Amino acid sequence: MNTEKVPDIIVSRLPVYLRALQRMADNGVSTTSSQELGEDVGISAAQIRKDLSQFGEFGKQGTGYHIPFLIDRLRQILKVDRSWDVAVIGMGELGRAIVRYQGFANRGFRVLQCFDSESSKIGKKVGELVVRDVEAIVKDVRAANIKVAMLCVPASAAQEVTNKLVDAGVQGILNYAPVSLSVPANVKVQYIDPAIGLQRITYYL
Amino acid sequence: MNTEKVPDIIVSRLPVYLRALQRMADNGVSTTSSQELGEDVGISAAQIRKDLSQFGEFGKQGTGYHIPFLIDRLRQILKVDRSWDVAVIGMGELGRAIVRYQGFANRGFRVLQCFDSESSKIGKKVGELVVRDVEAIVKDVRAANIKVAMLCVPASAAQEVTNKLVDAGVQGILNYAPVSLSVPANVKVQYIDPAIGLQRITYYL
Repeated sequence: MNTEKVPDIIVSRLPVYLRALQRMADNGVSTTSSQELGEDVGISAAQIRKDLSQFGEFGKQGTGYHIPFLIDRLRQILKVDRSWDVAVIGMGELGRAIVRYQGFANRGFRVLQCFDSESSKIGKKVGELVVRDVEAIVKDVRAANIKVAMLCVPASAAQEVTNKLVDAGVQGILNYAPVSLSVPANVKVQYIDPAIGLQRITYYL
Repeated sequence: MNTEKVPDIIVSRLPVYLRALQRMADNGVSTTSSQELGEDVGISAAQIRKDLSQFGEFGKQGTGYHIPFLIDRLRQILKVDRSWDVAVIGMGELGRAIVRYQGFANRGFRVLQCFDSESSKIGKKVGELVVRDVEAIVKDVRAANIKVAMLCVPASAAQEVTNKLVDAGVQGILNYAPVSLSVPANVKVQYIDPAIGLQRITYYL
């Protein structure tokens, strides 16, 4: 299996399938079909079968998918069959909400460190964590071997903090700051910007 | 121009171009090229030219794009040349952060109403707004002619609240709840789920 060749658009749908399957499993369901999964996530059954076929054989004609098996395989493919330690930078309201969010643990992530630049916040607790100084990012993130970060700082600070994260060895950044980041080719960035989400909606209204 | 025919993937990039152009304009820059814009947003110049060509002629060979003109056209295309009133449902930490967020106004949105189901929160202020009872969604949202909502409720409540929003005439929902929503064909949903953003990153690590 050469994962390099799978288009980004297919990769982007796999976590959606995984989330729906985990929900089915939580509800005690053990098998599903591409039709049923498709109705759940709003994607056609044919598309789901095509997407999954990139990674092997997951279901049998007539009997559908065995949910625990498909969950295991998707978690392996997305590399969330392990727990990734995450650093959260920027302890404004959003950053604090993320640190306290309970929903990451069963999806492959644990917030291990959090940072801010304001002296009034450094040393205080957010949830279970003590806020660290952004100046310590390179040292602390590297020491903990953290590879994934969530960026919740203002746009004006985003690139500078990103440079620190890259220096610290971070390879993936989920960026909430409303600005595009410049990173080396080996670092992956995903963007979360509610205004962009809203504009993708209003186009169709 | 038949916007129905423009692929979703192209539409999804337009807000990213708009954000970068607005930033350039804020910095006093008045012209740019597809090369420069491409470096800013991490998308190839050829892709940008191809995307924009779906909507007409925006630049001249050799002189590039006039930024204020391109911003105006993108705002028209995305229908954010007006201000959309938005309802935010769920006044947990995330919902409260969204209500207080200052960054929507210059991007086409204004949070006008916010709702929660907990009696301890209803009637209290969040930012400038008084929290309303979710039971009043259909009446209040319809009375204010709000067409766009942001959903920040737990997964278990998301579909029920969505049904109310649809009843109230909402046509677009930005959903932060980690669950796929079932809506009529005329309602557009966009999803924001940080765990999915993170999983799209770890796939590549």
